[in-house]
Amino acid sequence: MVHIEAKIKDMGIELPIRPPNPKGNYIPFLKQPSPTKGRTLIYVAGHLPQLSTSAGGALVTGRVGETLTAEEGAAAAKLCAVSILGTVRAAAGDLDKVTKIVKVVGFVNCTDDFISQPQVLNGASDFFVEVFGREIGAHARSAIGTNVLPLEVPVEIEAIVEVDE
Amino acid sequence: MVHIEAKIKDMGIELPIRPPNPKGNYIPFLKQPSPTKGRTLIYVAGHLPQLSTSAGGALVTGRVGETLTAEEGAAAAKLCAVSILGTVRAAAGDLDKVTKIVKVVGFVNCTDDFISQPQVLNGASDFFVEVFGREIGAHARSAIGTNVLPLEVPVEIEAIVEVDE
Amino acid sequence: MVHIEAKIKDMGIELPIRPPNPKGNYIPFLKQPSPTKGRTLIYVAGHLPQLSTSAGGALVTGRVGETLTAEEGAAAAKLCAVSILGTVRAAAGDLDKVTKIVKVVGFVNCTDDFISQPQVLNGASDFFVEVFGREIGAHARSAIGTNVLPLEVPVEIEAIVEVDE
Repeated sequence: MVHIEAKIKDMGIELPIRPPNPKGNYIPFLKQPSPTKGRTLIYVAGHLPQLSTSAGGALVTGRVGETLTAEEGAAAAKLCAVSILGTVRAAAGDLDKVTKIVKVVGFVNCTDDFISQPQVLNGASDFFVEVFGREIGAHARSAIGTNVLPLEVPVEIEAIVEVDE
Repeated sequence: MVHIEAKIKDMGIELPIRPPNPKGNYIPFLKQPSPTKGRTLIYVAGHLPQLSTSAGGALVTGRVGETLTAEEGAAAAKLCAVSILGTVRAAAGDLDKVTKIVKVVGFVNCTDDFISQPQVLNGASDFFVEVFGREIGAHARSAIGTNVLPLEVPVEIEAIVEVDE
Repeated sequence: MVHIEAKIKDMGIELPIRPPNPKGNYIPFLKQPSPTKGRTLIYVAGHLPQLSTSAGGALVTGRVGETLTAEEGAAAAKLCAVSILGTVRAAAGDLDKVTKIVKVVGFVNCTDDFISQPQVLNGASDFFVEVFGREIGAHARSAIGTNVLPLEVPVEIEAIVEVDE
């Protein structure tokens, strides 16, 4: 077993065995050559917080500031990040190949007066940094609030991840 | 006449003769070299659903879940995609040069209880896949709900498209 | 003193001395090689409208269409752009190295009936074009409305900027 996946398992987290079933006519990831020779950029589609590790598993639903607290939102954001890493593993073959979490954009389904979107998204960002360390895991990020998200989820996260070929 | 444009015409769709007039101080597309030699990445600005094929043509307006159904939202998303292809044609000279629809991000102006953003955006994604086939047309995507969009449109879509130089 | 920074100073604007303190577990910018040899792409995280030039300075707060006018929103968008340039200067060492403002995505915290997001974001876009001229400063852009943003700010802007190494 490789290092990163062992680490994730030691954290008590089970990675999805394959990318989630797309919710529409799109693909969960798309690989493009990186400008850095020998590396690939993975454009990861918006991922939702999936409770189970099966590809069609149940989603966390709710609205932060209404039916969910900021902490519950952060837990959902972490599930988005877990789902993203399942997809990156499927795309790259092995999470030890990850060279950089480049960019993360996260949307939080919340009430008009909830203003702690960064706290919610830290659920994902903390996980990436814990798994890969700061040098690889620290990323540029935008945190956005919104009035509603697909299938009533509280968080949706997309990413760009660089990996060795 | 080239293959892709003939195919679009056979679908009964007329491409805009040039990119839409920007709604602010920006440009409708920006070309950057692709990491793949001989190819170009086109960053396509957020495009709105335009009813007519003229650059300053009328827009579809409305809010999904309120004044528009999901199906009407999907029809508007398709118009965004048509407008995007008009812009890509202007940028690349010829749609046969498209090598990959890389990434699509779509925002749906909708009520707080409308949760079928993926269905709405399929109006655009289905069109891309129908026109280019899955190998070129299938893309990574994020579908986001929001409380309002510019000029009261129901959908706004941006994209990254790769083309041969 | 270099040309671009002198120009900004002549406009009566003081650039932040360093990137803003991140509002969560992320980094304000991430550099990646550009496909164009000798150039670097800077992925700039979502930046908020900061009143002061200190890294932890006060933010503009409010909601466009409610507590702020479109003009006040545009002034806030300009502050986001100023903050972004402070970050780009920190990343690149010198704003004269900027070769292209590639892409801007801006979110406007606004009421459901406010539809002039492009006007608000022109506060940032006009500034980029004024500072760098059209050839370098004109960019692809998406303008999105939303019901709420982190820390109650009226505008959040992220960008991709290309610079000479």
